[in-house]
Amino acid sequence: MNLSEMSDDTCIRFLESHTFGHLGCSGEGYPYVIPINYACEARKVFMFSMPGQKVEYLRARPYACLQVEDVGAAGRWESVIVQGLFEELPDTDERRTERLHAWSLLEKRPLWWEPGTFEITDGISQSEGGPVFFSLSIQIMSGRRVEHRS
Amino acid sequence: MNLSEMSDDTCIRFLESHTFGHLGCSGEGYPYVIPINYACEARKVFMFSMPGQKVEYLRARPYACLQVEDVGAAGRWESVIVQGLFEELPDTDERRTERLHAWSLLEKRPLWWEPGTFEITDGISQSEGGPVFFSLSIQIMSGRRVEHRS
Repeated sequence: MNLSEMSDDTCIRFLESHTFGHLGCSGEGYPYVIPINYACEARKVFMFSMPGQKVEYLRARPYACLQVEDVGAAGRWESVIVQGLFEELPDTDERRTERLHAWSLLEKRPLWWEPGTFEITDGISQSEGGPVFFSLSIQIMSGRRVEHRS
Repeated sequence: MNLSEMSDDTCIRFLESHTFGHLGCSGEGYPYVIPINYACEARKVFMFSMPGQKVEYLRARPYACLQVEDVGAAGRWESVIVQGLFEELPDTDERRTERLHAWSLLEKRPLWWEPGTFEITDGISQSEGGPVFFSLSIQIMSGRRVEHRS
């Protein structure tokens, strides 16, 4: 078994070629982790969520991380973690272009995982409010890869 | 599509019947997320890690969370998050029984994911030091399930 660090460029390529990870943020006292779809471009990670707890957490404490893994055959795996600052892309004139660009990247992905997209109302799912788009500017990044060699 | 909250008992049964999740802790300034194997018994979550950054983070700031998901066919998914306190199970006379019990639970699992188990030395993996066993006592728990109904 061989464990190696991934270079900065390799981490970025890894993030760009994946679409699903786990976002960590700081809740009230405790950390908070959610599965999330993302898109990575030009060293920025774009995500969206319907309004809710995690968005409130991120607005209050904008330090976040995204961890992405890929598990292959025979115990091979890769994992990349980036830490950075949450930045909301509101639907304002100033940020509209960036927001539309984020959506243009995200809508290409299989958005099967949208746990924040629905609000619970008497057991019936209903969307409520518009999505919050945000980016994570990468401040710290690292990646590790395990390969088995005979 | 129907989104529903999972009851406390359902969350526990879900945690007990799964073995892999994502652990969130508080790093230096930023949250930190890692994939991890776990075992859940009697409302406690047991995990282990080789010494390293995440253990240092947890020792410094013992507030942690574990998020576990299960993605099924046709867009069905379940996700449970628990938040609680990290408690180390050191190899002392006082905690040895609990430590051995934690290991007896964990060793039954497929421990294919042990990213912290190896230290990097010139590209060659070597284990270094003994594993750190710890538990997470569940303080806050919630779960959500999405099912598609025709």
